[in-house]
Amino acid sequence: MQLPIIPEYDLQFAKEAQDRQNTLTKPAGSLGRLEELSIRLAGICAVSRPSFPRKAVIVMAGDHGVTEEGISAYPSDVTKQMVFNFLRGGAAINVLARQADARVVVVDIGVAGEFEPTAGLIRRKIANGTQNMSKGPAMSRSQAEESIRVGVEVVEEEIAKGLDLLAVGEMGIGNTTPSSAITSIYTSLPVRSVTGRGTGLDEAGFAHKVEVIERSIAVNKPDPADPIDVLSKVGGFEIGGMAGAILCAASHRVPVVLDGFISGAAALIAAELEPRVKPFLIASHLSVEAGHRAILERLGLRALLDLDLRLGEGTGAALAFHLMDASVKTLNEMATFSEAGVSGKE
Amino acid sequence: MQLPIIPEYDLQFAKEAQDRQNTLTKPAGSLGRLEELSIRLAGICAVSRPSFPRKAVIVMAGDHGVTEEGISAYPSDVTKQMVFNFLRGGAAINVLARQADARVVVVDIGVAGEFEPTAGLIRRKIANGTQNMSKGPAMSRSQAEESIRVGVEVVEEEIAKGLDLLAVGEMGIGNTTPSSAITSIYTSLPVRSVTGRGTGLDEAGFAHKVEVIERSIAVNKPDPADPIDVLSKVGGFEIGGMAGAILCAASHRVPVVLDGFISGAAALIAAELEPRVKPFLIASHLSVEAGHRAILERLGLRALLDLDLRLGEGTGAALAFHLMDASVKTLNEMATFSEAGVSGKE
Repeated sequence: MQLPIIPEYDLQFAKEAQDRQNTLTKPAGSLGRLEELSIRLAGICAVSRPSFPRKAVIVMAGDHGVTEEGISAYPSDVTKQMVFNFLRGGAAINVLARQADARVVVVDIGVAGEFEPTAGLIRRKIANGTQNMSKGPAMSRSQAEESIRVGVEVVEEEIAKGLDLLAVGEMGIGNTTPSSAITSIYTSLPVRSVTGRGTGLDEAGFAHKVEVIERSIAVNKPDPADPIDVLSKVGGFEIGGMAGAILCAASHRVPVVLDGFISGAAALIAAELEPRVKPFLIASHLSVEAGHRAILERLGLRALLDLDLRLGEGTGAALAFHLMDASVKTLNEMATFSEAGVSGKE
Repeated sequence: MQLPIIPEYDLQFAKEAQDRQNTLTKPAGSLGRLEELSIRLAGICAVSRPSFPRKAVIVMAGDHGVTEEGISAYPSDVTKQMVFNFLRGGAAINVLARQADARVVVVDIGVAGEFEPTAGLIRRKIANGTQNMSKGPAMSRSQAEESIRVGVEVVEEEIAKGLDLLAVGEMGIGNTTPSSAITSIYTSLPVRSVTGRGTGLDEAGFAHKVEVIERSIAVNKPDPADPIDVLSKVGGFEIGGMAGAILCAASHRVPVVLDGFISGAAALIAAELEPRVKPFLIASHLSVEAGHRAILERLGLRALLDLDLRLGEGTGAALAFHLMDASVKTLNEMATFSEAGVSGKE
């Protein structure tokens, strides 16, 4: 399939931002990771003074046939119910996006059950949830490609409306299960060590979840060299959608803020499809989910926040928007030593 | 001296916030530390739904006689120069406070050199910097008490104007040196292990700094059981001012957001004077400065952010305002399961 073309991370603009940081009225490096972040954002955007007036959080929603194996503490119905909650503005991501002055873009890419045309809902459903991956592929290869295409197209539309910063989030009961499968495949770590309790499993539930994921990989034999094969066999529609969103944003030099474990699995797929996407990714937070740390290591990322979040929806990413703004506002708005008449180091 | 009276942390309102968190449309606990923070803020403010429309960052500025020992990479003049930078809005704290919609309150509590009456500057100078603490007390006992009183009075005035959330920050070339002395005294850790490189010392400079701090403690023999004695002998005017600010805010149930190492040393003094202040303190970030972790352990606090900051001014605290708002906004604005018609855990 045709993928968006990712440009080069721009070392020259990163250098300009670095040079400016060293002239600002503070000891060099004293703003720590905010300085590093501002430099990276300059390299991503290929401008010397980035700013992000127009922000969006994309929430990709999809269901998972594997829930019939009893791997989630919540019923699948909750995916659809939460989509309505997103549209009415009552979910955590709505609150945090309002705080960040970001718009929430809700996409039905594979929720089980029909939606009437509803204001604010982007209807790009591929199917009523995936198939049960513990018995065969979660989706067909063409559906996997379609999920990526949906992500690309949705972000293209947002960029046409005006977009400077993108967060990718999701809703999908059961979706830590495919995410653990993808993570195990791309980190070569055993399923057990990259599987968590999702949103509330007990010890027996956890052991069962591990067994279901191991069986899903054994039954499907996904080929790690072929990320579309992995996505189709042990993935999910919202995971493919996020992978497409990530690739599209990077192709336009829009920084992509990852959320937690599931968006991290999507980033693994995106980075396997196109390794040049990596410098465009920002890790917002370190999730409580067991496999997330391994994903970030694999991608070479370090999370900005560590707040024991495990909600998804894009919540950690929306929180991190503030730090990204802080990093570029200090770069852009602080006085230099010479402007302020402040003495330098002796 | 007369200190502000600190009320009880309110367990009943904390419980109400906890109960509400468990009804909101998310798996219980999935917002992690944001949930804990909202609960603690309810207990501090003694309301079931806290909010912080009016925020301030107090920046206490003072100089240090001990700089004549050559313990800082920057000249003392920078303290005064940076005060002008704060007043003109060009410093990092100005940028981050604007982003957080917080006002910056700049106090000359002991800068070396006179200021003309200047719009926005609160002139409460106790002296033109402290004395060289490696040769005798940094200040007299009455000056130490006065520094705390200034902090109390400045915050009383801010509260009269309207204040829901306070950050304490500082500016004072050389002030990591007294802060390490205070930290060593109250953590019983050797000076070497709670001393850092300030804003830019090399290895020899570091060894010298440790020696100066050890000498200051040996010469003055501060009595740990008497925090005013510690403050007067090895403290600073801005450290006393922040201690007073902390106590005053807590007495009004205004949450106090600590910044880094120096405000942490002020919090040690405040907590030794009045241990009931502890639940009113929020640790915004973990500084790069070596002694900061020990301070937080001593106070029983866990930092919200870890961004390798080492600037001071209140910058980390101003950044954390966003997380505090996020915690109470999710508490206040999210839909409950029953409001949203979302199914609970099976």
